[in-house]
Amino acid sequence: MSKRLRMVDIIAHKKDGKEHLEEEIKFLVDGVKNKTIPDYQLSAWLMAVNIQGMSKKESAILTHEIAKSGEILDLSAIGDYIIDKHSTGGVGDKTTIILIPLLAAAGVPVAKLSGRGLGHTGGTIDKLESIPGFNTALNIDDFITTVKTHKCAIASQTSNLAPVDGILYALRDVTATVASIPLIASSVISKKIASGANVIVLDVKCGNGAFMKSVDDARVLSQTMVDIGQYLNRSIVSVITGMEQPLGNAVGNNLEVIESIETLKNKGPKDLTELCLYLGAISLVKANKVTTIREGKDVLAELLNNGKAFEQFKVMVKNQGGDVSYIDNPDKFPASKYKLKLNASKNGFIQEINAMEVGKLCKILGAGRETKEDPIDHAVGIVLNKKIGDEVEVNDLIATIHANAKEEGEATLELFSQSVIYSEFKITAPELIIDTIDH
Amino acid sequence: MSKRLRMVDIIAHKKDGKEHLEEEIKFLVDGVKNKTIPDYQLSAWLMAVNIQGMSKKESAILTHEIAKSGEILDLSAIGDYIIDKHSTGGVGDKTTIILIPLLAAAGVPVAKLSGRGLGHTGGTIDKLESIPGFNTALNIDDFITTVKTHKCAIASQTSNLAPVDGILYALRDVTATVASIPLIASSVISKKIASGANVIVLDVKCGNGAFMKSVDDARVLSQTMVDIGQYLNRSIVSVITGMEQPLGNAVGNNLEVIESIETLKNKGPKDLTELCLYLGAISLVKANKVTTIREGKDVLAELLNNGKAFEQFKVMVKNQGGDVSYIDNPDKFPASKYKLKLNASKNGFIQEINAMEVGKLCKILGAGRETKEDPIDHAVGIVLNKKIGDEVEVNDLIATIHANAKEEGEATLELFSQSVIYSEFKITAPELIIDTIDH
Repeated sequence: MSKRLRMVDIIAHKKDGKEHLEEEIKFLVDGVKNKTIPDYQLSAWLMAVNIQGMSKKESAILTHEIAKSGEILDLSAIGDYIIDKHSTGGVGDKTTIILIPLLAAAGVPVAKLSGRGLGHTGGTIDKLESIPGFNTALNIDDFITTVKTHKCAIASQTSNLAPVDGILYALRDVTATVASIPLIASSVISKKIASGANVIVLDVKCGNGAFMKSVDDARVLSQTMVDIGQYLNRSIVSVITGMEQPLGNAVGNNLEVIESIETLKNKGPKDLTELCLYLGAISLVKANKVTTIREGKDVLAELLNNGKAFEQFKVMVKNQGGDVSYIDNPDKFPASKYKLKLNASKNGFIQEINAMEVGKLCKILGAGRETKEDPIDHAVGIVLNKKIGDEVEVNDLIATIHANAKEEGEATLELFSQSVIYSEFKITAPELIIDTIDH
Repeated sequence: MSKRLRMVDIIAHKKDGKEHLEEEIKFLVDGVKNKTIPDYQLSAWLMAVNIQGMSKKESAILTHEIAKSGEILDLSAIGDYIIDKHSTGGVGDKTTIILIPLLAAAGVPVAKLSGRGLGHTGGTIDKLESIPGFNTALNIDDFITTVKTHKCAIASQTSNLAPVDGILYALRDVTATVASIPLIASSVISKKIASGANVIVLDVKCGNGAFMKSVDDARVLSQTMVDIGQYLNRSIVSVITGMEQPLGNAVGNNLEVIESIETLKNKGPKDLTELCLYLGAISLVKANKVTTIREGKDVLAELLNNGKAFEQFKVMVKNQGGDVSYIDNPDKFPASKYKLKLNASKNGFIQEINAMEVGKLCKILGAGRETKEDPIDHAVGIVLNKKIGDEVEVNDLIATIHANAKEEGEATLELFSQSVIYSEFKITAPELIIDTIDH
C-alpha cells in the first residue's frame, strides 16, 4: 500500500534526521525535473540535508536519480572502459589537457566532457578555446566518431546531461547549501554517470585554493564518492591532492595551454608532470592496461619522452578544428601588453604562495569570470618562477604578471607581492599527492 | 564600518549555528516586508533556524521586528494596563468568550483581537459569528471607543498587524518548519505586541489535542515567550494547561457559545470555569487590581455568581450588533438536524476521550475548516456528557453528535465510539493547570 507522497513530509523527515526511502528521492528528483516542487520547498530540503547529512544509500540513490533526470550517453561503442577524470577545481589545474592525449597515446580512448571556469578556478573548455579554431561544441555522434577514429576528444558539457543537477546547484549557490558533502558528491558523480563513464578517476583538491580546505573534509568527500560508485556499480577512485599553491607554474588560459604543451613534451613543471603520471597510471590500472601504478607511470613517462603524447595532442587539436601551428610554435599565442615582474624582497625560502590569492588575482586580471556571462581574456594571468620551499635571494624573479591593463597589472603586482611570505628557515614543499581512496 | 549584508551570508551564519546580529534580523524582516528576499532563501533560513535554534536575544529581536513590520495599535487611551490573553489552540477552548466580559465586569477594560479556526482547532471569531448580527470587523477607532465606553470588545485581527508574520507562517506551513519554538514564540508575541498589549496572559495547551504534545515542549515554549517579554519590556505570563481531552463539554461553534453563556451564569462545566477563574485571576494580579491569585479568583467567582459577568457579555453582544435575545434564550440558536447518541458500551471508568480525535471529527461534521476559504456550519459539533475519570454504566450517555448530514453523523458516531477507551479501574482525571511560568 503506497501512501501519497508530499514534499512537506519529505522535508520533515530530513529535518528530523531520518533516512529517505528510495521512492521519496525519486519523487523529489522527478518533482525538480517537472517543476512541480517549488524552489522554496527544495531549498528547505537542501538546508535540512546540509545540516543533517545523508547516508551512503541515500547519496547513491540521489546520484542515480539526478543522472537519470536527462540523457545518459551511451559510449559503449568506444570500448569496454569508458574513463573519465574529474577535478573538484583548483588554481593552475591543467591536468585534463595533458592527461586526455596522454591516455589516448597509451591506447585508452577517452571521451571527455569538461566545463567552464567560475569564481577563482579556471575551466578546461575556456583554456582550450584560447587555441584559435578549437571547437568544443561537438554533437554526440561526432564526439563518439572522433574518439573511435582518433582515440580522444574534449567537448563542452551539454545541459541535457543531469539537468536536475543544474537546478539544484543554482539554488544551493544562493541558499548557503553548497558545502554539503552528499550534495557535492551527487552533483559530481551524477554528471559523470550521465556522460557514460564506468571508470571515474577523481582528483579531490584540498587546501586554501580548493573548496575542501582540510584533508579530513577531502577524505570524507572522497569516501562518499567512492561509496556511491560501489553502490552504483561504477569503478571510482579518488586521489586527494594539495592545493595550497597553484599546480604547475602557469595560471591563465593560453599560459596554461603553453605549459601543457611543455609538459606533453616532457619539459613541464615537476609537480604537474608527477600528478599527470599518477592520475594517468591509476586510469591505466582501472582500464586493465597495466597491473601496477609503477608500471603505468613508466608507460606514460615514456610517451611524454618519445613525443607520442604530444603528437596525440596535435591530432586532437586538428580534429577539433584548432590551428596546430600554435601548438608547434606556442610563441604565436597572443601575449599580454604588460609583463610585470615580481622580484624577491629578501633572502630566504618561499613559505607561502597562496593558491586562492593567485586565483582571485587572475580573475581580476580578466582570466576568469564572476558570472557565467562575463567574457574572458585568454592572454592574462600569472606565471610563477618559484614555488613553496624554493630558496631565493633578493631580486630573484618570483613571478610574472601578464596584464592587458596597466593599472590592474600594477594593483595585482602590489597585492601579490604582499601575499608572498618568506621564511629565514628551510621550508618543505607541501605534499602534492596526499592520499588515494579506493574501495 | 558596516559591511554590506547579504541574505546568503545570513543563512550561512544560522546554518553554522551562529547567533545573528541585530542588523541581520532587521535586514531579514525588512527584506520579507519589501519582498526583496526571495522565498527560496527565506525557507532555507527557516529550516536552519528550525534545526539550529535561536538565542533569547535573537528571538526577542525577531519578535520586535516582526511586530514593527506593520501598524502597532496605540490602545493607551483605554488605560494603563492593556491586557491580552492568548491560547495556543485547543479543542473546546471557549475561554476568551467568557474571560473578556468577566474581566471587564471586574473593572479591567479588554480590547481583544482574535482569529479564526484552522485545522482541528476552532476560532473565537467563528464561534461569536454564530450569534446573529454579531460584527467582529470593527475599525480601530470604533474598537477603542467601544472599549472606553463599555469596557470590552472582541474584533477580528486585521492583516495590517505584523504582516511579516503572515508571510513567514505561510512559508513555514509548506516547508515543515512550523514546529520551531523560537518561530512559534515570535509569531505569537509579535501579534500581541502589534495589537497594543503590555500585559499578555498565555494559555499554552499541552497534550494530544495541542500543537505541543509534551509538557517539556510546552515549558520551553512558555519560557521562551516569557523571556521575550522580559527583553521587550512586556509583562508576559504563561499557563501550561492540559489538552488530552476537550476543554468543557461542548465542541462546535454555537454549541460553545451556549456553553459560554452557561458558564457566565456560573452553571458551566467545572474544568472550564476553573481555567477561566485562574487565567482571569492572573490577569487581575498583573493589572494591579488584586494582590493574590486567590483574591482574584474570589472576585471573579462572585461576578459569575451575581450575574454581572453575564450582563457585561450581553452589553458586548449588543454593542457589536448581536441579537441579545439569543443570549437570553439560547434555545433560539439553530439546532442541527440530527442528534446521535453515544452510549457507554460497558461498565467502568472513562480512560480516554481523545481531544485531537474530537477536533478532527467536528471538522468533518462541518464545524471547522481545512483551508481559509471553507464555509463553516455553526450548529454542528460534539457535546460530551462524560469526561476522563467519570464512572459509567452500560447505556449511560457519553456524548451527543450534532450533525446536519445523516451519513456524516453516523460515520462520526462510529469513529468516535471506537476512540473512547474504558478502564475497569478508577482513573484520575488529567491535570488541567499544569504549571505557570512567570519571570
